[in-house]
Amino acid sequence: MVTDFSSEALHALVRGVFEHHGFSEADAALSADVLIEADLRGIDSHGVARLPGYVRLIEKGRINPKPEIRIVRARASVASIDGDGGIGLVVGPKAMEFAIEKALQTGSGSVAVRNSNHFGIAAWHSLLAVSHGCIGMSMTNASPLVATANTAERLLGTNPICVAFPAGEHDPLVFDLATSAAANGKLEIAERLGKPVPEGWILMPDGTYSTDPSALKQGGALLPLGSFPELGLHKGYGLGAMVDLFSAVLGGAAYGPWVPPFVAFLDPIPGAHGQGIGHFFTAWEVEAFRDKSEYEQAIGHWITRMKAAKPLNPEVPIQVHGEPEVLIKQTRLANGIPLQPAVVEGLKALAKQAHLSF
Amino acid sequence: MVTDFSSEALHALVRGVFEHHGFSEADAALSADVLIEADLRGIDSHGVARLPGYVRLIEKGRINPKPEIRIVRARASVASIDGDGGIGLVVGPKAMEFAIEKALQTGSGSVAVRNSNHFGIAAWHSLLAVSHGCIGMSMTNASPLVATANTAERLLGTNPICVAFPAGEHDPLVFDLATSAAANGKLEIAERLGKPVPEGWILMPDGTYSTDPSALKQGGALLPLGSFPELGLHKGYGLGAMVDLFSAVLGGAAYGPWVPPFVAFLDPIPGAHGQGIGHFFTAWEVEAFRDKSEYEQAIGHWITRMKAAKPLNPEVPIQVHGEPEVLIKQTRLANGIPLQPAVVEGLKALAKQAHLSF
Repeated sequence: MVTDFSSEALHALVRGVFEHHGFSEADAALSADVLIEADLRGIDSHGVARLPGYVRLIEKGRINPKPEIRIVRARASVASIDGDGGIGLVVGPKAMEFAIEKALQTGSGSVAVRNSNHFGIAAWHSLLAVSHGCIGMSMTNASPLVATANTAERLLGTNPICVAFPAGEHDPLVFDLATSAAANGKLEIAERLGKPVPEGWILMPDGTYSTDPSALKQGGALLPLGSFPELGLHKGYGLGAMVDLFSAVLGGAAYGPWVPPFVAFLDPIPGAHGQGIGHFFTAWEVEAFRDKSEYEQAIGHWITRMKAAKPLNPEVPIQVHGEPEVLIKQTRLANGIPLQPAVVEGLKALAKQAHLSF
Repeated sequence: MVTDFSSEALHALVRGVFEHHGFSEADAALSADVLIEADLRGIDSHGVARLPGYVRLIEKGRINPKPEIRIVRARASVASIDGDGGIGLVVGPKAMEFAIEKALQTGSGSVAVRNSNHFGIAAWHSLLAVSHGCIGMSMTNASPLVATANTAERLLGTNPICVAFPAGEHDPLVFDLATSAAANGKLEIAERLGKPVPEGWILMPDGTYSTDPSALKQGGALLPLGSFPELGLHKGYGLGAMVDLFSAVLGGAAYGPWVPPFVAFLDPIPGAHGQGIGHFFTAWEVEAFRDKSEYEQAIGHWITRMKAAKPLNPEVPIQVHGEPEVLIKQTRLANGIPLQPAVVEGLKALAKQAHLSF
């Protein structure tokens, strides 16, 4: 049985927990903004359910609660930033703000980030750019769970990429995708429901495909987008690799199999040739390329045309990217955010530890 | 039976044909550079086999042989360019050169291009950036052949994206992918060999999957990368959509189903809300983010680790992206470029028309 919570109540809890663990007021509030937005948009795997995981990393000293975020190198339209081991929920927005500042000055801005941690939903950062009239691109590498080509070794993370476009009177178009066939959160949902997953999500060490959602615990690896060689697995692998190179090799973070694990019970692999998790952000100011009114007319027309497609299944509405999340957010703002009992228990324990009522 | 031709002989022919059709010497030579590089890298669908198609578009007045390429808008790190209906083989490199210039000045440069035509292999443009110490990203939209989600309508092109990374003593890493499950060229190869294609490449108007490589002629559409809803088709659709928005909606080219067809026997759809085919280029200077030596050490180590993966099939070498093309190029530089009889016939006809020996 799920229980519904108001976003305000959850926001206050998250803020209080992070403050208890040494965050500044501003950083705790920003972190809560990012996590609650994930829940509001229906990305339950990236919302408050992750709070216990973040806290364990803080307790282990693997997230620095008071980072001094530092610009390592900068030019007129780019920069490299060292996150000082801070939480990605804080480091990410600061880096994207810097990219936006450069975009408003020169037309575009790109920022590579090293020495960070998990940054929550990529869409939060991309939408920050949209709120300043920019197209926003965010990517991050992540702990190794995904195989490459002709191997079952886990060499890359699910390495998501998100690009959000302002769309005038329409909601922004938000393309937010893990570069694996399925994100880890989908396995968790299938496991909870006791359902098999499609063939093409998980590869076992012997090269066979598993439909068991818990197969990662038996050494399985996620497959890249494309799933099979004949359906373009090398493309999904390529996308994941690109995200790793932009996020880590360009700015100096750990890459490939050396990306530190999100779970606190696994230690980072020694010998990482880089620091922490890496991100990459770009903002492009729309008006630097084209009159805003012309752009908005074109993207509005684009959206209208895509939604007017003749549906194969007329009972399923044709939606554009970002639309389902907006609809879920409307519902959850009105009715509350539904949380699983295990998630509620985890939050109650954190509340107790921080002497907060929840 | 294929016949082998030297790259020099083909280059001279292509140059002569384009000059005969009104190109300047410099533009004809540049166009030949791009086409021959495709053949050398083994991307036969984008090499000299396309020359008759380009010539038919010139003859129909749909490619302007003497374009005045014009900067429409510019800021310190971005620009929009109008290709004046020129061939993408010329407009593309000029636009990327401008992006590189901005990257060397400010750290990054992005250029949106409208009113262009087919730009050949995306890798050519991205590698231009690599030769200046930059990461290069190139994308283009293309005539509508690909379905979106829950529809069999052809609403997007195969919209490729290519990112190339300099890699020090290693060959550059080149990620070059159509955002459909399979590019059109793969259907042509299957058709020539009389072989069925995998389920997941082609969707028919009634929602069934076809394995007939000629099914596009019966109204079929290519499927986005991911192929099936449960394997992430919406991700491939999202990637193709992003390429369309960057390439056309941002800079003012025609988008979605209004992109002008590459084949001269199909007329552009009236009412296009933009001009010609669109591209988008970005160059990021590596040194603006990190010391070159550190970057090169990291990417070299990344490549070494990926290639050291334990292979599932030990008879298939583990390669990184861009490596197969480099090997083909070595072979073809030594032994010549193999051309199918139909391609040779087409070239002979063009040579005769232009009074060239071939």
